Amino acid sequence: MVRRVCIVGGGMSKWGVREASLWDLVQEAGKECFEDVPGLKPKDVDGLIFANATAGRRGFQINSAPICAERLGIKPKSICARVDVLCASGSTGILLAYGLIASGMADIIMVVGAEKCYTPQKWEIFYSELATGDHDWDCVHGLGLPPPFFAMVAKEHMKHYGTTKEQLAWVSVINYNYGAENPKAQFQKKLTLEEALNAPEVVPPLTLYDCCPITDGAAAVILACEEKAKDLMDRPLVYIRGGAQASLHACSANWPGEHFADWPHLKVAAQRAYEIAKVGPEDIDVAQTHDCFSISQIIEVEELGFCKKGEGGPFIESGQTKIGGKIPINTDGGLLSVGHPFGGTGIRQAIEIMKQLQGRARFQVEGAEIGLTHNLSGLNFEHTIVIYGREPVK
Amino acid sequence: MVRRVCIVGGGMSKWGVREASLWDLVQEAGKECFEDVPGLKPKDVDGLIFANATAGRRGFQINSAPICAERLGIKPKSICARVDVLCASGSTGILLAYGLIASGMADIIMVVGAEKCYTPQKWEIFYSELATGDHDWDCVHGLGLPPPFFAMVAKEHMKHYGTTKEQLAWVSVINYNYGAENPKAQFQKKLTLEEALNAPEVVPPLTLYDCCPITDGAAAVILACEEKAKDLMDRPLVYIRGGAQASLHACSANWPGEHFADWPHLKVAAQRAYEIAKVGPEDIDVAQTHDCFSISQIIEVEELGFCKKGEGGPFIESGQTKIGGKIPINTDGGLLSVGHPFGGTGIRQAIEIMKQLQGRARFQVEGAEIGLTHNLSGLNFEHTIVIYGREPVK
Repeated sequence: MVRRVCIVGGGMSKWGVREASLWDLVQEAGKECFEDVPGLKPKDVDGLIFANATAGRRGFQINSAPICAERLGIKPKSICARVDVLCASGSTGILLAYGLIASGMADIIMVVGAEKCYTPQKWEIFYSELATGDHDWDCVHGLGLPPPFFAMVAKEHMKHYGTTKEQLAWVSVINYNYGAENPKAQFQKKLTLEEALNAPEVVPPLTLYDCCPITDGAAAVILACEEKAKDLMDRPLVYIRGGAQASLHACSANWPGEHFADWPHLKVAAQRAYEIAKVGPEDIDVAQTHDCFSISQIIEVEELGFCKKGEGGPFIESGQTKIGGKIPINTDGGLLSVGHPFGGTGIRQAIEIMKQLQGRARFQVEGAEIGLTHNLSGLNFEHTIVIYGREPVK
Repeated sequence: MVRRVCIVGGGMSKWGVREASLWDLVQEAGKECFEDVPGLKPKDVDGLIFANATAGRRGFQINSAPICAERLGIKPKSICARVDVLCASGSTGILLAYGLIASGMADIIMVVGAEKCYTPQKWEIFYSELATGDHDWDCVHGLGLPPPFFAMVAKEHMKHYGTTKEQLAWVSVINYNYGAENPKAQFQKKLTLEEALNAPEVVPPLTLYDCCPITDGAAAVILACEEKAKDLMDRPLVYIRGGAQASLHACSANWPGEHFADWPHLKVAAQRAYEIAKVGPEDIDVAQTHDCFSISQIIEVEELGFCKKGEGGPFIESGQTKIGGKIPINTDGGLLSVGHPFGGTGIRQAIEIMKQLQGRARFQVEGAEIGLTHNLSGLNFEHTIVIYGREPVK
């Protein structure tokens, strides 16, 4: 029988510009994760998946999964792997761990996501970013760093759907206001519309607050088969109902949509994840979507089916992603406010959705039964979705 | 129900020092893999796992899985991930793909392993190798490159068990003689005991032929659920019966055994893999073990249970790993002769075992029913085992 898989607990380091090594951050997150599941000892964890994209370049460390395990006192016997899908590494790690537990190859896996993005040599920060696009076909032609790419996306969305700079700013204002109360967030500040609109431009039309920051941070979650999950805690069980990851291109010249603001690969991933999880967008009570830029979240609410195509701007401006709105999103602050240490982000998203479904979130969506995380990577290469529920798929 | 998973077909590029990019190699392997499963079109492949360790450092390319998919014409909708467990990345990718297919999250996954190890700047070859140990605790103290580490392993084995330089040389002589007939091998030459013994020393007691070379290469396999596998080909079905990956340490000061020639982490992985696959070492008809150095294979035949601890040297010297011996090993030439492009090696091993169980290997073990692959990574951080069979686990 395919086993049911639960997310049991999680923990995070403080996120931000940290005077700490990658392993310091991992240990900070791991400690909080173990504290969140007091019944669990490191020796009970039989697998470790480490989500990290850049330690090979920035930290001069490949084959990092066994090191991560050692630093956490874990001795894996089912799996000990590092996964890199850049910004989506974390949720990819969760999908891979799901398969191993569901199929009976593992019982309890810790999925750790971490990134040391802020390096003392500041040029290396940007140098490394240039390793994130398609090096042969995009980067050599100057399309490498994400901000210019997402600025083009924003311009296309404005052109085709009339989206405004105010609507972009609203994404940041709403997400920052959630993050202001989150002690782990890189920015714990409330943001006004005026501040957002008057901020310096990074790449027009994107201002400083339309872009997520450069972040050091780590996060960790425990996944377990249903039987073990019941043993480990008394909190309500939260099941992984399903998920999917889709890619239709890599080089931007092969963009799969009509234009850069049309994201069919997200639609493909969402459709498959909804099918596997046996739910539709109308069933999702709370979501985390990948707001690496404010424009991303606008397009994501469309392609995920929370509103009609092209209406993401008005949807967010009218408060539909706030608590009490149609679908509360990024209720911990999202990438814009909490930050974006690549491998860590998907894990942070999972923790927030788990807490929402367990009824212990900071900004609680009352009675949330079904939650979704969405993660994308690089210059919009692929989309990763995981759907969680208080009830398993039947 | 947990679904049965089959390995359906595979292909390789020519391995060696290649004037070709990482993606050239991937396309060469992918083409042969698709030709090996004529019923399969790229559009039928719903997932891609890319096993690669060093493209971030050497090729300036992270988030490489979507690029790999694009170059092969594959549009993944279940998974599109890159995995790095250095030298064991390939078989780790197979374990992860197994979980997704067995649990019903994916139907057909291509697992591609590739590495461009030989860079024009020769210093970068060694520089990158230094990213493979535990950077903070081993590399800073000078323990980084694999040859000195495995030389210490060999010295310990000689000290504790009386292993001789001749026995080390026999590993290479036997494996080279298999590889001499393999058109994909980096070295297609027959090696005599005299040549091996009189070769230049790399790190005493290891000579040139005791060490695997620096290799560019790629390999790809198709894994599918049983139902799809039956549709795709008329060859005998080969099932993944089980597998495991174990790590007990990373920093060499935390070595988990009595001495460097005692590998308890391999024993842990083997025991778990045998349990899941419901077989014992005596049931294995043909194996691939990770002969990155001749001494590795000597210890592996011991820890895998093919002979008693300490008797690996005489076991190999007496011909037990040849066709007709107790357990034919590395019948395509192994790492020593075919080469070792990190991510590619586990996939090459899988292809050889698949061909053996399908009855179409170059040096065929007659009637082989059950096969095993063993992969290790870095400075012996972890061990990965996959067990294949003509019959599924019942």
